[in-house]
Order: sequence, then C-alpha cells, then structure tokens
Amino acid sequence: MTENIRVGVLGARGRMGLEVCKAVDAADDLTLVSMIDQGEELFQASSAGAQVLVDFTNPDVVMDNLKWAVGQGISVVVGTSGFSTERLEQVREWLAAKPGVGVLIAPNFGIGAVLMMQFAARAARFFESVEIIEQHHPRKLDAPSGTAAHTARVIAEARAAAGSPPMPDATKEEHLGARGTDVDGVRIHSIRAAGLVAHQEVLFGTTGETLTIRHDSLDRSSFMPGVLLAVRAVLRRPGLTIGLDPLLDEG
Amino acid sequence: MTENIRVGVLGARGRMGLEVCKAVDAADDLTLVSMIDQGEELFQASSAGAQVLVDFTNPDVVMDNLKWAVGQGISVVVGTSGFSTERLEQVREWLAAKPGVGVLIAPNFGIGAVLMMQFAARAARFFESVEIIEQHHPRKLDAPSGTAAHTARVIAEARAAAGSPPMPDATKEEHLGARGTDVDGVRIHSIRAAGLVAHQEVLFGTTGETLTIRHDSLDRSSFMPGVLLAVRAVLRRPGLTIGLDPLLDEG
Amino acid sequence: MTENIRVGVLGARGRMGLEVCKAVDAADDLTLVSMIDQGEELFQASSAGAQVLVDFTNPDVVMDNLKWAVGQGISVVVGTSGFSTERLEQVREWLAAKPGVGVLIAPNFGIGAVLMMQFAARAARFFESVEIIEQHHPRKLDAPSGTAAHTARVIAEARAAAGSPPMPDATKEEHLGARGTDVDGVRIHSIRAAGLVAHQEVLFGTTGETLTIRHDSLDRSSFMPGVLLAVRAVLRRPGLTIGLDPLLDEG
Amino acid sequence: MTENIRVGVLGARGRMGLEVCKAVDAADDLTLVSMIDQGEELFQASSAGAQVLVDFTNPDVVMDNLKWAVGQGISVVVGTSGFSTERLEQVREWLAAKPGVGVLIAPNFGIGAVLMMQFAARAARFFESVEIIEQHHPRKLDAPSGTAAHTARVIAEARAAAGSPPMPDATKEEHLGARGTDVDGVRIHSIRAAGLVAHQEVLFGTTGETLTIRHDSLDRSSFMPGVLLAVRAVLRRPGLTIGLDPLLDEG
Repeated sequence: MTENIRVGVLGARGRMGLEVCKAVDAADDLTLVSMIDQGEELFQASSAGAQVLVDFTNPDVVMDNLKWAVGQGISVVVGTSGFSTERLEQVREWLAAKPGVGVLIAPNFGIGAVLMMQFAARAARFFESVEIIEQHHPRKLDAPSGTAAHTARVIAEARAAAGSPPMPDATKEEHLGARGTDVDGVRIHSIRAAGLVAHQEVLFGTTGETLTIRHDSLDRSSFMPGVLLAVRAVLRRPGLTIGLDPLLDEG
Repeated sequence: MTENIRVGVLGARGRMGLEVCKAVDAADDLTLVSMIDQGEELFQASSAGAQVLVDFTNPDVVMDNLKWAVGQGISVVVGTSGFSTERLEQVREWLAAKPGVGVLIAPNFGIGAVLMMQFAARAARFFESVEIIEQHHPRKLDAPSGTAAHTARVIAEARAAAGSPPMPDATKEEHLGARGTDVDGVRIHSIRAAGLVAHQEVLFGTTGETLTIRHDSLDRSSFMPGVLLAVRAVLRRPGLTIGLDPLLDEG
Repeated sequence: MTENIRVGVLGARGRMGLEVCKAVDAADDLTLVSMIDQGEELFQASSAGAQVLVDFTNPDVVMDNLKWAVGQGISVVVGTSGFSTERLEQVREWLAAKPGVGVLIAPNFGIGAVLMMQFAARAARFFESVEIIEQHHPRKLDAPSGTAAHTARVIAEARAAAGSPPMPDATKEEHLGARGTDVDGVRIHSIRAAGLVAHQEVLFGTTGETLTIRHDSLDRSSFMPGVLLAVRAVLRRPGLTIGLDPLLDEG
Repeated sequence: MTENIRVGVLGARGRMGLEVCKAVDAADDLTLVSMIDQGEELFQASSAGAQVLVDFTNPDVVMDNLKWAVGQGISVVVGTSGFSTERLEQVREWLAAKPGVGVLIAPNFGIGAVLMMQFAARAARFFESVEIIEQHHPRKLDAPSGTAAHTARVIAEARAAAGSPPMPDATKEEHLGARGTDVDGVRIHSIRAAGLVAHQEVLFGTTGETLTIRHDSLDRSSFMPGVLLAVRAVLRRPGLTIGLDPLLDEG
C-alpha cells in the first residue's frame, strides 16, 4: 500500500484555503497535516512532516513562504497570484539549489478552464474569426477577466504562428460603452449580471460553421480537482512547473 | 370559400422582394398579381386588381409609392426603412382621407425577433441586470445592430416605468476595443464572426438565476411568415399600424 | 412613510424557511417578526403582530396552519406542496368566511421559471416545432422534471387552441435509451450531469429561424424574489391566488 | 513563387461537387483544371494535367475512379461514402504499386466537427458525466446522427482507457418518447425542429463546473475549408490517409 501524501495548507482560513483543507481531508490518498494562517509559524508545517504545501495566501507573503519551503525541501502548489517574470526567476534560482523539490504555480486550477484554453489554442488556426465572451457576477472588479485575457493571448499566438490573416470585420464606426477590450487583436466581451458566477465562451467561425467552447464554473469547489491533481503531481516534478497544462498532457 | 387576397410586390427583383414573391406564390390564400421594380409603372398594380402591395424598395421612392397606393385605395405592407416621425405623420394624413385603407410599416418582420423584444420588455422589471449580446456575420457595417438598439430601448423604458434601480456593476476600470455600446443604460455586446448569420441573446439576471431569450435567424426566408401575417392583417386594419406587435397580440 | 409589512415564517429552520428568513430580514420594506418551526406554537406569530405568514412546512401540517392563520385574519404565502383540488376547495371555504384575508399558493416561486412558461405559451402558436431540453444534477430522481412537464402541457394547450398542425418530423426509427419523454406531443429531453444545477431550454423553430427561452437556476436563493413578491402582493389580494402568474401580469 | 496545385473535380455537377468547384476556383493557390460528371471521360483530367482529383461521386463508381487515378499517378481526395474494410484494403494495394501517390478518404470534411470530436475524446477522462445533444432539421431520417454516434464512441473509448467509473445518475424511472439513444453508455439526445440545420453539443460535467463543446453547421459550404486542406495535404502524404484528424494534428 502506498502511503498517503502529507499536505499542509497556507492561508488555511481564507476562502480558497478552507476549500483546499476540505478537499484534502476528503481525498483517500492525502492526509491534511497542517493548517497555517496569518500570524502562525511556518515551521509547524515542517514539524508536522508536510511533503507538499498548498499556498493560497497573498502576493506580500508568498515569496517568503516559497523561500522557506524550498529551503526545507518541501514542494509547493501555489494558487496565489502576482507572479512576475522576476519572481519566477527567483523561484527557479531557489529550486536550482534543491534538486528534488518541485514548485507548481498555476493562475487557474479549473481543469475545465485549462482545457478550454488548450482547445482554443488548437482550434485557432483553422478559423477566420474568433471572439471571447466572458460572463461574471457583478461584484467582479476587473474586466476583462484574467482567464479571458490569457485565452486571447494564446489564441493570438497560435494565429500568428499559423500566419492567419486579420479577421474579417466590416464594422464602420465603433462606440464606447461596451464592457471588454481587444487583447492582441482578439475581442473580449465582458458581461456582468446578477445571477451569473463565472462563465466563458470562445466562439470560432469560418465559412458556414462555428465552433464554440464554453466553460461554466459554479463555485470555487470547481477548482479542487485541479488543486488535488497538482498536489499529487508536484512530488514527481522537481523544478518549476507553470500551469496545469503539462499535467493534463501527461495522461 | 373565401377568395384569395390579390397581392402586388414593389421592389420585386430585390433580394427581399424576390423572397416575398416566392412566399406569396406559395401561400394557398394569396395570389401574386403584380411584380413591379424600378422603371416600371405603378398602375400595373391597380390594373391587375391588387388589394395589398408589399413594398421592399428604398427610402427615395417609398413615399411616392405610398401616396399613390393610398390614393388608389390599395393597402400597403412596408418593409422599406427610413421612416422619420415626419414621414409617419404624412402617411397618417393621406390615410385620414381614405378611411378604408390600411398601411402597416414594420422595421422587422421576423416574428421571432418581435417576440424576443416583447418578452424582453415584459421580463425587464423582474431582474436586477440585463445585457444584450448580438452576433452577426462580419460583412455587417453597423454595430450595434438596429434590433439590439431597439431591444435596449424597450428594456430601458420598462425598467424606468418600474422604477428599477441602476444595475449592479463593480467594474473599476474600462477599456476601449470591445465592439458594442451602451444604449439608454443597457449594454450591448456586438460579436462579428465568419459563419454567423444573425443572432441575438438577451440575458436577464437576479439573485441565483438567469433568464435568456435567444433568437437565431438563418436567412431572409425567416421574415416571410411575418410578411404574410401582415398581408393578411392589413386589410382588416384601416389606418396606420407600426410594427408586428399589434398583430401578435391579436390571437 | 409606509410602515413595513410584518412577516412570520413557518418552517423557519428548514432549508427554504431559513432562506426566507434571511431574505425577509434583508428587505427594507419587510420586518421579520416571528420564526416558528416544529414543536413551537403558532400563536407566537399572532402575538408578534404578523400580517403575513410564509409557510414552507410539509403536507401534514400545512392545512392546520392555514386554518389557524385565516381564522386569525393573517394572510399566508404557501410554498409547501401537495395541494389537491379538495384541499384548495377547503381553503376557499375558510377564506369565504374571512373576506379581507388572502392566501397565495404557488408550486414554483422562481420568477424566471414562471416567465419562461408564460413566454413559451405565448410563442407556441407562431412556430412549427418546439422541443424542451431540461438539465439537472445527477441526484435528481425524476425525469422529466415537473417544470418541464408543466411547460410541455401549456405549450400543447396553446398549440391546440391555435389549431397548429402536428410538428414536422421525418425520423424513421426510434431507439430506447434517451432520458426524457413526450408529454402531450411535446418532446422533453432530460440531461443529467455532475456540475449542473437546474436549467431548462425551450426551443421553438420555424422556416429560417429559432427562438430559445432558457432558464438557469443556481440555488434556492433564486426563489426568494418570487417569495417576497408574493408577500407584498398577498395583502392586496383577498381570497385564493394560485401561482405567481397573476402577480406577474399585474404590472 | 510556388506554382498552383492543379485540381480536377469528379461529380462536378452534384451538390457537393459544385461547391468544391467554386471553392477551388476561389482559392489563390489552386487552379481548377477539369470538371467531370457522369458520362464524361476520366482522361480529360489527365489531359488537363490534374495533380489532385476530388471525388464526390457515388459508391458505384468511386472504386473505378480511384483505380484509374492511382494508375495515372494522380492523388485523390474522396468524400464519397461507402468504404468497407475490403475497399480500403484494395485501395492500399493499388497505392503500394505507386509509391508517390496519396489518397485521402474522409467521412466528414467539417473541420469544426472533427475538432469537436478530438476535443471531446481528450476532455472525457477529466469529467464524471457527459451527454450529447444533437439538433437537426426535421427532414432528417435517422436519429441519432452519425456524427453524434461517432462522438459517443470516441468518448466511451477514452473513458474506458482512463478507467472512469460509471456516470452518476439517480433517475428512478424512465419513459419512452424522447428521441435519441444510448451509445456505449453515452446518452444522445436528438432534437428535430424547423429552422435548425445541423448542430451538436457535447456537455461534460464534474464538481462545480461544466465544459461544453458546440458545433453549428449552416450549410455545405462549411465542408469546403476541410476539402481544400485535404487537397493541399494529399500531395505531401503518399499512401492512404483516413479522415482529417492526421492533418489537424500536423500543425
């Protein structure tokens, strides 16, 4: 029998952290050994024998957490945002000194969302047109959503690599007032309405046909399958892994 | 047995006119008696005994057509665009002198589109949020579409009448580049892509639920049921009728 | 300034009851004066001066609750199920003796769902074809859903009233195994999948166009706007009201 | 400057053949050199210097066409149906004798449909539930559609390979009357309505999220991008290629 992976959670009392604790606790092959939040000591995690830490804290403390964990030889799955190229470079440096340790940093743990982006990147070169429609609850501060902007970028890259011509568009005059924007030439339409949670549609079109890829996320429990996938994978993946994509390709 | 209604078509060789000729010809209760296009004489229609004319011509000639037809005591169904308040007033004046004659002017003969607008107007006061997503082929020159702008206006009126508060929206910064606009406080998102024809979605949302009304139009044959409905109704409706709405309420 | 309506909740610790308490509490124009559950005395509601009771209890006790409330001159909004023709007749009898009191019994407080059914009934006679697609979480025991079956019935009635011919359908052979059924000639397709909550789509089609009405319900909070609408209306509606429809028509 | 590929069309006056002629003619990198239909001689194609033939004829003549073309050293893209294992074996034998020649036989030239199936196969192992909803015009004789049945099979294979448990489904009783069926454990719902053309949705669901892949095909022009892709590829692909999949993977 394989032994369970021993998992600690940083930011354990935040909204995402709590969900992670519940999900780890419910998984047969994982054991929750440490729950740490603001004002508590990181060494509780090492004392408890954590093999993997899951970090949903905030950009102010995440780098300190990573430095300490890598130094201790503990692998980390990171959902905290705000990773610049400089920060990623710093993490790579720390990892270089600790060959067995893995860090996986993902902007999005929704497997459905990651598949949507992969499929969008793959479909891009076969269609003349593509636009993104993202729909969220009205308490969301930013428009377009980070996922939509990221999707637009991977589509634009795929189109550029394939030498796709500009999309056809005869619109003569444009007006202000529609929420959304254009990211690298791909239009994003941002809908905000009560009753929505988090939804995104990527619409591809060419002569006589359209292909639509749509992701609907109803609550943050939808991220847990992706977090657990990462926890299980990070021990087998020394060094830095960015995003869930490499894990989804594995199977 | 009732006799067939005798129908003439003005603009009979235009794209819409041709469809009308085919649809009239195929209808059991209508007889196509006259097809008139540019450079041909209107009196052919009266000679042929037309009881109803269908006018899909252009804004330059439609007023002359109407003056002549009303003068002859022939009712008219008009799909030509460009009717200002002044023009409507003029038509009413001509009709006042001819009590039995009817004119029906409709900006949209799509029964599905008209129902969509009616339902949207009716749903408006029960939801906190509403946004419109219209999707068209990339050869379309204007954005937003006329139907979307009209839908936004009827929704805004219904919300104003019900005293609806402003829609919730926490978006902090907005960017340029999304096609679409805001009409009377209702956001319209305009998608343009190859493979699309003419589609519109009205999305209503409130706590925990959304209601979506969607219309998909595949080609101009979709307007024919509305044109025939109007042809049959205009003989029973002396005076000026605007839009299909009163006809849809009849049943 | 109008005084707030004083509201009591029966079944206050049930899942729906708790939501009602929260929603009443959050509404500016309502005051929650009494929360009563199993084993507690109804007269607490009258002592607290409740003008309207909301009953989400169960079929075993709801008739006793109604008899008592009507006797006390308190109006009631009822979401409890199980009302036979006999039960409704009994309630009418009690109300006849108390001319000022109102009772509103609704099988569904989702405003979106009720509007969907109204719109479907209204659109039915203008389209050749209509099918219903209902989508629910996989823990649901019945297929098709009650709402879908009810929608099919109102559509079938509207088609019959309009003398609609049978829907076109060239399908030569049919197989078993698709979840769903045919209710009064209207096909219902029942989708069950993890990640879904409660969704329904009514698809109408005719030459060249389709009209789709879709309702998405994410959680039971979606019923609260309908419950509050009923609480506000029941005081102005003496006698028995069935369903939300008459309230939605009022505006 | 590369020279244009010289293309001949067999079955040039059939519905698909005509579309192919138009599409080849409109493509900058292809030249239409020969249009052949029933009763006309195949050697016109070789005289005209065709490098690639596109065959949309019928099962009775397609094998003769292939034998002749391969013998002449001309590559062929085949959209004609009816290829049994025996026929494919025969084609492979002819090609073995002509090392430079390529034949590509595809049951479906819709790039969107092929991508939909590839994405569905890939997503299958990450979701607990999946159902297919296919929507077609009411003149269609078969239900479910061939594309839907094929999609169900590739999903079932992917789930089996990943060891996916049975889908959750608490439905207690099922009724007859819903169009559709179950193919290898995957439910297919078949909608038929006027106004529809050819549409398919694959709905995947797991905890808190759904992923939907939808393909809408409006007319047979939607197959042309796939035919042209095949024409350009077949010259680089000696031997037998089945389906568009290998071409879509190339990029």
